[in-house]
Order: sequence, then structure tokens, then C-alpha cells
Amino acid sequence: MAVEPAPVNDDLIEALRAVVGPRLSTSAAVREQHGRDESYHTPHPPDVVVFAESTGEVAGIVKACARRRVPVIPFGAGTSLEGHVAALHGGVCIDLGGMDRVVAVNPEDMDATVQAGVTRAQLNTHLRDTGLFFPIDPGAEASIGGMTATRASGTNAVRYGTMRENVLALIVVLADGRVIRTSRRARKSAAGYDLTRLFVGSEGTLGVITEITLRLYGIPEAVSAAVCAFPTVADAVDTVILTIQSGVPVARIELLDSRQMAAVNGYSKLDYAVAPTLFFEFHGTERAVAEQAETVQAIAAGLGGENFAWATRPEERDKLWKARHDAYYASVALRPGCRGWATDVCVPISRLAECITETTADLEKSPLTATIVGHVGDGNFHVVLVIDPDDTEEIAEAERFNGRLVMRALAMDGTCTGEHGIGHGKMDFLVAEHGEAVGVMRTIKRALDPDNIMNPGKIVRV
Amino acid sequence: MAVEPAPVNDDLIEALRAVVGPRLSTSAAVREQHGRDESYHTPHPPDVVVFAESTGEVAGIVKACARRRVPVIPFGAGTSLEGHVAALHGGVCIDLGGMDRVVAVNPEDMDATVQAGVTRAQLNTHLRDTGLFFPIDPGAEASIGGMTATRASGTNAVRYGTMRENVLALIVVLADGRVIRTSRRARKSAAGYDLTRLFVGSEGTLGVITEITLRLYGIPEAVSAAVCAFPTVADAVDTVILTIQSGVPVARIELLDSRQMAAVNGYSKLDYAVAPTLFFEFHGTERAVAEQAETVQAIAAGLGGENFAWATRPEERDKLWKARHDAYYASVALRPGCRGWATDVCVPISRLAECITETTADLEKSPLTATIVGHVGDGNFHVVLVIDPDDTEEIAEAERFNGRLVMRALAMDGTCTGEHGIGHGKMDFLVAEHGEAVGVMRTIKRALDPDNIMNPGKIVRV
Repeated sequence: MAVEPAPVNDDLIEALRAVVGPRLSTSAAVREQHGRDESYHTPHPPDVVVFAESTGEVAGIVKACARRRVPVIPFGAGTSLEGHVAALHGGVCIDLGGMDRVVAVNPEDMDATVQAGVTRAQLNTHLRDTGLFFPIDPGAEASIGGMTATRASGTNAVRYGTMRENVLALIVVLADGRVIRTSRRARKSAAGYDLTRLFVGSEGTLGVITEITLRLYGIPEAVSAAVCAFPTVADAVDTVILTIQSGVPVARIELLDSRQMAAVNGYSKLDYAVAPTLFFEFHGTERAVAEQAETVQAIAAGLGGENFAWATRPEERDKLWKARHDAYYASVALRPGCRGWATDVCVPISRLAECITETTADLEKSPLTATIVGHVGDGNFHVVLVIDPDDTEEIAEAERFNGRLVMRALAMDGTCTGEHGIGHGKMDFLVAEHGEAVGVMRTIKRALDPDNIMNPGKIVRV
Repeated sequence: MAVEPAPVNDDLIEALRAVVGPRLSTSAAVREQHGRDESYHTPHPPDVVVFAESTGEVAGIVKACARRRVPVIPFGAGTSLEGHVAALHGGVCIDLGGMDRVVAVNPEDMDATVQAGVTRAQLNTHLRDTGLFFPIDPGAEASIGGMTATRASGTNAVRYGTMRENVLALIVVLADGRVIRTSRRARKSAAGYDLTRLFVGSEGTLGVITEITLRLYGIPEAVSAAVCAFPTVADAVDTVILTIQSGVPVARIELLDSRQMAAVNGYSKLDYAVAPTLFFEFHGTERAVAEQAETVQAIAAGLGGENFAWATRPEERDKLWKARHDAYYASVALRPGCRGWATDVCVPISRLAECITETTADLEKSPLTATIVGHVGDGNFHVVLVIDPDDTEEIAEAERFNGRLVMRALAMDGTCTGEHGIGHGKMDFLVAEHGEAVGVMRTIKRALDPDNIMNPGKIVRV
């Protein structure tokens, strides 16, 4: 049923101007900027960019496009990694960056409602006097709308979950311009199909998310972080498994391989041991944090983990996590002029050591420059391939390597993407992963977007 | 598009026998038993009951029904409360009780895969030597398949979440007999639409869930429970709010009102104070549990909570929670010969005291016999109305009371059902709650079940 999208014409531009006035651009620079994300994928600029400031405006824009069967591509902060914002069939990009209002904070209920363009850091700044915070931290300064649309997570999902667990309700503009609210603010509900979860991770292909109600958490009384080096990756991962099994509610537990540690040392002027290393963070009361740290230190010591380096003062912790957050940029800096390509498999934790070990062996046989960094408490790790974007053979080799990595993860009952999403970069892997279930996804896509105008060419082929 | 379902005929019976052999019944007693749940709703027996023992058999049964447009109603343990198993349009009931195998336990990954007919207690018995347990406890001895289909929760959702958060993957037989697996075993994934969450809570209307992969948790090193009486319901609820806000990871926190406490004393031969009462449970290390209990006791004392009665030994705790679990039966026993009608609203916790207080005032003006018991950490509470099933005026009064209660909860941004589901008992309330979003649910239902054979007449009208 592949529906051919229609082109943008003057009539549509006029209709869009009636909705957003002067907040519309067809300039090459603005279009270029909105057709690319932070990945290696080839940019695809939209035909026109509109800057929406309300749900009503988004509904007006979508209606104007729907009437003419023109594609609609939502744009948050442009930090996605699988070509989610690429206008593969042209069309109208809706920049939601101007929807940057924190609509409501309910401290008693520990929730907040934000417009889609609010960023994670902006929300936490807004919350600073409430004693509450929003924990999900994908590293990039992403928008909450984009994080919702890609089912993002990051370093502390092991404790606080992903966007899947932390979105309570959404306002969504559907493909025909209707506006729905997917849920009330109650913490749980058994009222009908879980539309909230259907739209979380739908990458703009079923509707445009314009408002998000999120769970918040109390800022822990005490926070403590630590770094510990291990003889092998397997020892580090076994430490993770035992930690999770022991029930320690660790807030973050991140693995960096030797090459990644060398890159971080170079980039951030640090002198960590060049060895497989775990970064930990513990949240709780003073007593609970001390107890957690004690338990984990004992587990690590049993597996050759040495020189637990503690960071309890905020500035020490910030330095430690800055090094972790900069890991991607540190890797890319290994080869000036090159771009990063972050793979994203996630496997059951019992298979993690095996998956990383086999992947490391595969890397050693390949000519690729790469580091490994992972949210290992969840079984999720990224190989950061550092690629010359002009070297087609290198790109082909990276594709082959990534294909082998994904198939290895799927054979271990894992997923091709733990947190980056499918976009147009992983559509074939989605079929390999889900089989017949992709048919159900396609049925849902066709039912909710019969003219295939919502971010077409992403997730499923219709 | 209301599709008229077809009747069961000899040709279908023959086709079903080809799948399940002698495991098929058309006897009145078996049909009666499969047309009723534990609620006040009028039973609707199916035309035939088949007892499936594998996903393949379920697929064969559904295919035979689909070819003839005959309704399919899945049946677990029959403990639902909104008429979910009623064969409103006749058809074939698939009893999944014989699918009672624990398929796999992965202790390292802290997950297990079970067939739909496995019960919660059966799974925990199976797990007893692993140090792990499955926490969701709806009170009734429900099947895991039924708990999944209704998005159940119960007393410890405040700590461990609901079925929404604890199902990792499903095997589902679709309306045309195709079999899908909704997800891999990885803890998180951003791969496509969240079909797992779409089927959790779909009440058999989109497909038959035959296998479920669940998260498990380590059995806590220490468990401690306590009972505490308060001057007013508001004081008790304020204690709950402060406890949640203080970040204490309380495992259970249940409210019983004065009438419920009187009923429990009478039924379970106990001598608790007849006052609004909280039941608590704490899980963790010895030190953590002591610290949590200390914090909560201090909060309660500040709000007039008196005589914290501790139960640390397993047999004391069992007695305490047996009293709580029997609350429903204790209420029903207040009027011999009567049936229970459990309402199920859930509101943001900031509105909980107000909602319960207004509801209590409403009850006092009505002639109804009722108690209140609630999973107050989630904002969810049940008014248990004790109804003479032969008194039509009393039933009408209960309906009016429940209608006022639901509208009160919706006005407070709550839901008509925290954990029981919609069934055919709350379809109008679903529309009141979700508005336009019910149209999206209907679109999904029509797309995935175009002939309306999957548990027709539940959740949405097609």
C-alpha cells in the first residue's frame, strides 16, 4: 500500500503561515540543520521548517499537511542517532524547540508536565527548589519530547527505569490533527489500552507528542560515586551481575573498556588506569549509601577490582561523570575529522560478558577504530566506531561489523537497540528481531496513519 | 461497523475436537462456571469450553473460530471483577488453566517465563530455592495470564510496580491465529512499538496471551510489618504522602477504614483498634528495614498515629497480612447471602484524602453497607459495597454511588480503575475518562480484530 507522499507547494506554505505566522523557514541553512542528527547518517533536509509554540498550532500544521498528504517530521533537539529527523520524502519539519514551558509541577504527587521542547537540564533547573529531580539522562542535551519519542534512557536506568517507566501521560496530535490525552495523572490505571506506552518510542510515526507528564524522584539525601579497574571485562561484568542480584539499588553502573579509558584520559586530561573500569553511583540515606558501597566494594574485590576511588563531594563526582559523559566525544577525538557511529545492542545480563568478549575479539580482527562503553546494569553497551565519513570502504566495514554485533545480540535473546531507536537506520534489524510482530506494528501504523504522512520511512515500511 | 458474531455449530465443534480432542465441554455446569467471575455481574455462559494445553492449540482454536467469525473468550482463574469472562455474544471459552508450566527460570537475569495458566502462588512455590520471587499480589489466586490481561497490581505495587512494569515479553495468539512474540528478554529496548504494553491490559480483546516473561526480585534479607491506627483517614493518608515523599521504599502501605477494621476483627477474630488504620511492610537489609521503619514511625507519630504494632517474625506477619487479604471476604460476611461489589478508583496521591473523605460522606448519606480498603501508596482504593443480588433498588443505588465516585475521581485527574480493568462493567466510564483517545483504542481494535471475535463487548464498542 506504499502511499506516495505529496510535495510541499505554495498553497500549503500559505496554510502553514496562517497557523504560525512568520515562524516558518524555507532557507537552505535552516532546512539543512533540521535534516541531520548527531549520527553518521546522510542528512535529508525537509522542504520547510515551522516553529510551533502550542499544541493547537501543531494540530493546525498537521491538519494542513494531512489535507494535502504531505509528510510531517517532528524535531526536538536533533540529538537522535538513527536518522529519526531525516525528511526522507521531503515535507514539513515541526520544530518543537519553542514549546519550552514547564506546564505544571506537582511536588506532592512527584510529577511534572512539560511541553515537548523542554530539555532534561532545563526541567531539573526548574525543579531545583522542590527537592525533586527527573533522573533520565541520555547524555545528550535532548528534549523531553525527543526522549519520549525514542524511548530513551541512559546512565541511571538501572535504578530509575527508562522513559517507558517514567512517562505518566501524553498529549498527542494524531495524523488527522485530532488531539488526545493518553492518560490521567493517577500512578496506575487499568483503563483500556496503554496508549501512553504505544506512543512512547513511536518516533513520530503515529503522532506528534506535544506535552509529557513525568514521574519525579526525591533528590537523594546522600550520593556517592566510585571508579574501580578490573583485570578483564568479564571480571567487571561479573561484578555487575552479582551487584544486581544482591539487590543493591545501585543508581548507575557503567563499563568503559581499556581503549575507552585511554581515550577519556587523553580527552579529559585524567590519569585513570588503562583497564576495563566500572563507574558506580549510589543514592540513598547516608547509612544506606555506605552500606551499598560496602557491599559492592566487597563484590568487586572478590573479582580483582582494585583501588576503589571514591568521590563523595559534588565537584569530585561531577568530574568523574563528566569524564563518563565525554566518553563519546573522547572516542571521536581519537581520529580528528572523523564521526562517531554508536552501536546499541542490549542483552540479558547473563550473556553480557560473552557478548562483549566476542565483540572485542571481532573488533581486534577488524581495521576499525572503536571503544566500548555501556550501561551494563541493563545489559546495554555501545561500541563507538570512529569513522571517516568519506571512506566508503570503512563505512561498509562498520556496517558489516554492526550487522554481526546485532545478530550476536539477537542470538542471545537481546535487542538491536537498547535506547537509540530504529529510525531508518535499523529497520531491517527490527524485522530480524521481531519477525511476525512487525506485521502487527505495520497494521497499527496503517490504521493510525493511513496516508503515511507521520515521519514516513521510519520504524516500519508500510 | 458493529459486526454480528456467528453462533457455534456442529462444524465448529468438530474442528475444535480436531485440535483438543476430548478436552472440550458443552455441559451446562462447565459453561456456567466459565461465564462468571468473582463480581456481582450477571453470568453469561459460553456455548462451549475448550481446555488448551499449548500455544499451538490456542492458535488452532482461534483459527477455527476466526474462519467462522465465532467469539473467543480467554479464561484464566475466573477471579476478575468487571465481567471480563462473560460470553456476551456466546462463543468459545478457552480455559488456559491447563497451561500451567513454568517454562524457564533465569536466576542470573532475574526473570522467568510461564504459561498463562500458572498462578502467582504456583510460580513463587516453584521459585522457592532460587532466592527470587515475583511480587505482584492482587489478593485473589489469579493466573499470571489473567493478571497480565487486566494489568493487575495489588498490595505491593507501590514498591514493585504493576504488571505494566513487570512483564518483559509475551507470546500472543492474534485474532487470525498468527503467533507473535512481543519482545526479547533484554531489560530494555527501543525497537519499535511497545507491543508488550499494548497487550498488557487488553483483556483478551486483541489476542490471547499464552506465555509471559516476568521480572523477578531477590527475596529481601529482612522483612518487617507494622499496623498503626490514626485519629482520622486524613491523618493516615497524610502519613502515606509524607512517607512516599521522603523516598522511603516502603513495600506495602494499605489503608483500612474503621468499618473495614471492625469487619476484619469480626471475621478473623482479631482485636485491632476500630479506627482508620495503616498496614505497612518494609523490605531490605536488616539495617535498611530498621531505618525505614524508624522514619515512618516518626512520620506517623507526628500525625497522631499510635501504638505501632510490629510484626517481624514470619508467622506474625502472615497473620497480619491474612487479615488484610481477607478484608474483602470480611466485608461480604457482614451481610450473609450478599455479594461484594468492589469499586476501584485511583487518584493522584495529593487528592487521596479529599477523595476518600468525600466518598465517606457520600456513603454516610446512603443506605449502602460498605467498607473502604486501599493501596494508598498508589492513590488506589476500593469501596467494598455489600449488596443483596436480588434487590434491584439496592443495585441501582450502588450503581449511582459508583458513578458519583468515578466522576469524583476523574475530576481529580484520576482513573475509573486502578487495577480491575474495564471489562463490560466500565465501558461508559472509559469514555468519560479518555474522551477522544477511546477513538484511537477503537481504531486499534478494529485493525487487529476486524471481525470483532476477540472477547467482544469488552473495553470498547466497535
